[in-house]
Amino acid sequence: MPELPEVETIRKYLNKTILRKRIVNIKVFSKKQFPNNSEEIVGAKILSVKRRAKNLIIELSNEKTLLIHLKLSGQLLWRPKTLNKTTRIVIVFDKGELVFNDLRKFGWIKILNLDQLDLELKKFGPEPFSKDFSIKYLQKVFKKSIRPVKTILLDQEKIAGIGNIYANEALSEAEISPQKPVKALTIEEIKKLRKAILLVLRQGIKYNGASAADKLYLKPDSSNGSYQQHFRIYQKNGEKCKKCNTIIERINLGGRGTFFCPKCQNMSRFRYI
Amino acid sequence: MPELPEVETIRKYLNKTILRKRIVNIKVFSKKQFPNNSEEIVGAKILSVKRRAKNLIIELSNEKTLLIHLKLSGQLLWRPKTLNKTTRIVIVFDKGELVFNDLRKFGWIKILNLDQLDLELKKFGPEPFSKDFSIKYLQKVFKKSIRPVKTILLDQEKIAGIGNIYANEALSEAEISPQKPVKALTIEEIKKLRKAILLVLRQGIKYNGASAADKLYLKPDSSNGSYQQHFRIYQKNGEKCKKCNTIIERINLGGRGTFFCPKCQNMSRFRYI
Repeated sequence: MPELPEVETIRKYLNKTILRKRIVNIKVFSKKQFPNNSEEIVGAKILSVKRRAKNLIIELSNEKTLLIHLKLSGQLLWRPKTLNKTTRIVIVFDKGELVFNDLRKFGWIKILNLDQLDLELKKFGPEPFSKDFSIKYLQKVFKKSIRPVKTILLDQEKIAGIGNIYANEALSEAEISPQKPVKALTIEEIKKLRKAILLVLRQGIKYNGASAADKLYLKPDSSNGSYQQHFRIYQKNGEKCKKCNTIIERINLGGRGTFFCPKCQNMSRFRYI
Repeated sequence: MPELPEVETIRKYLNKTILRKRIVNIKVFSKKQFPNNSEEIVGAKILSVKRRAKNLIIELSNEKTLLIHLKLSGQLLWRPKTLNKTTRIVIVFDKGELVFNDLRKFGWIKILNLDQLDLELKKFGPEPFSKDFSIKYLQKVFKKSIRPVKTILLDQEKIAGIGNIYANEALSEAEISPQKPVKALTIEEIKKLRKAILLVLRQGIKYNGASAADKLYLKPDSSNGSYQQHFRIYQKNGEKCKKCNTIIERINLGGRGTFFCPKCQNMSRFRYI
C-alpha cells in the first residue's frame, strides 16, 4: 500500500495540479468506495491538498473536505490516457480529470466537514516529521509493550505513515531485528531507529516513492516511483547484504513479509519456557 | 471501555425503549463528538438498534443510521434524573430523552447513510457469536503472528468486541498465559480459548455487563451491571486464585493492566538470545 513517501509524492503533485480548479462532475462506478452524495461538492474549488498518515486531505471552497485513503491498491491518476476496468471514481474538473483506480477495491473517498475530519484523524499517532515524534515519545510507547518492533512501526495509532516497505528499510538501516520486542530496545537502539525512520522516509520522498514488485503504486502522471532501485532489504531475500555479504532472509511477521540480514540485524529468537 | 457484553446490554435496553419513537431535537454540547448536522435526522423514527463490535447502530426511518461508539467512558442513559457536567449530547424524542455522557470525551455519534456505514464497519473482524469465529479462522490468524495472545484478542480487526476485561477473563478461563505468542498456541489451546471467550462473553451478557472499579459503565437505566461480582481474575491482583490459591499477579502488557494466575496460566517467559 502507498505509505508516507508515496502519498506525499501524490500530494505534492496534486497540490500543484488541481489547485483552484473547480469540480464539475463526479462519476462513481463503485458506490461503496464513494459513500457520500457527490452533489455536496460539485461546484466547489480546490483550496489545498494535505496529508495525514497515509491519507490525502483535499480542502474545498465550501468548507467540506475530501478524505482519501488508497489502501492496498488505490491509484490517483491525473488525466490518464485511458480508463480501465479498475477505474472506480472519476472527479471531473473544469479542466482535466482525476481518476481513482483500485484493483482490490479497499480504498475510498469520503466527503467530510471539518468536525468529521477531526474525528477521523484523531486516532493517528504523531507524524514522523513532527516534533512529537521524539525519542521521549518512542521510549514511552515502547516501554509498555512486548510486541515486535516491526509490528509497532506499522501501527498507525503509534506512528503515522509507515507501512511494510519503510518499516523493513528502517530496521535494516538501524541494524535492529524486526522481531525484537520493543520493551527490550536500548535507548541507543531507539535513537538509531528514529534516525533511520526519518532517513528512509526522506529517501522515499526524494525518489518519489517505491513502485515495488506488484507495480501498484504510480505517480499521478502514471509513471513509476524509483525508490525501489534503492531498497536496502525489502524483497531482497536470497540476495547478499551490502554491508556483510550474508544472505538476506524473509520471514512472516504478523502476516507481512519481513526481510532482514541475520548478521547485521542480529536476529533475536524467542524461547518459551 | 464498554465491551461486547456492555454494549449488547445497552442495545437490548434501547431496542425496547426507543423503538418507533421520533427524534424531535438534538442538543449538542460537544460538537466534535457529534460532527454531523443534526437537522438530517430530526423527524426520523427509530427502526431498530443493532450492534457490531463495540458500536451501536441505530437504524432510522429516513435511510440514515446513527453509529455510536462509547470509547473509554461514554454512557447512554435513558431519562436520567439529572444532566451533569459530563453530558455531551441529548437526543430528545417525542417521549423521553437519551443522554450521552462522556467524562473523557473520546466517544462519538455519527450520522451515516448505508454506504458510509458499510465502509465504517468493514474493518472489524468476525463477531464472536457468528459462525465466522471458527477454530479454523483463529488458527489462520494466529499462525501469522508472534504477538502476545492478549494483544491479539484486543485487536478489533482480528476479533470484534473483546476489550481488556473479557480478554483477561477468557485467558484465565482457558488457563493460557496472556504473554504467550499466538503462533505458539497449540490446537488444544486455541479450542479452549475460543470456548472460554464465548463463555465469558455469555456470562457478561447474562449479568448485564461489568461496572468495574472505575464505575464508568452504567446501564441505560443508570444502574450498574453485575458481572464484576463474577470476575475470575480482572483487577484481582493480590487475591488468591480460586482454583489453586496462588496469588494473582498484575503486569502491564501493551499498556493495559493484565491479570493472571502464575500457576494456572503457566506464565511463559521470553528470552532474547
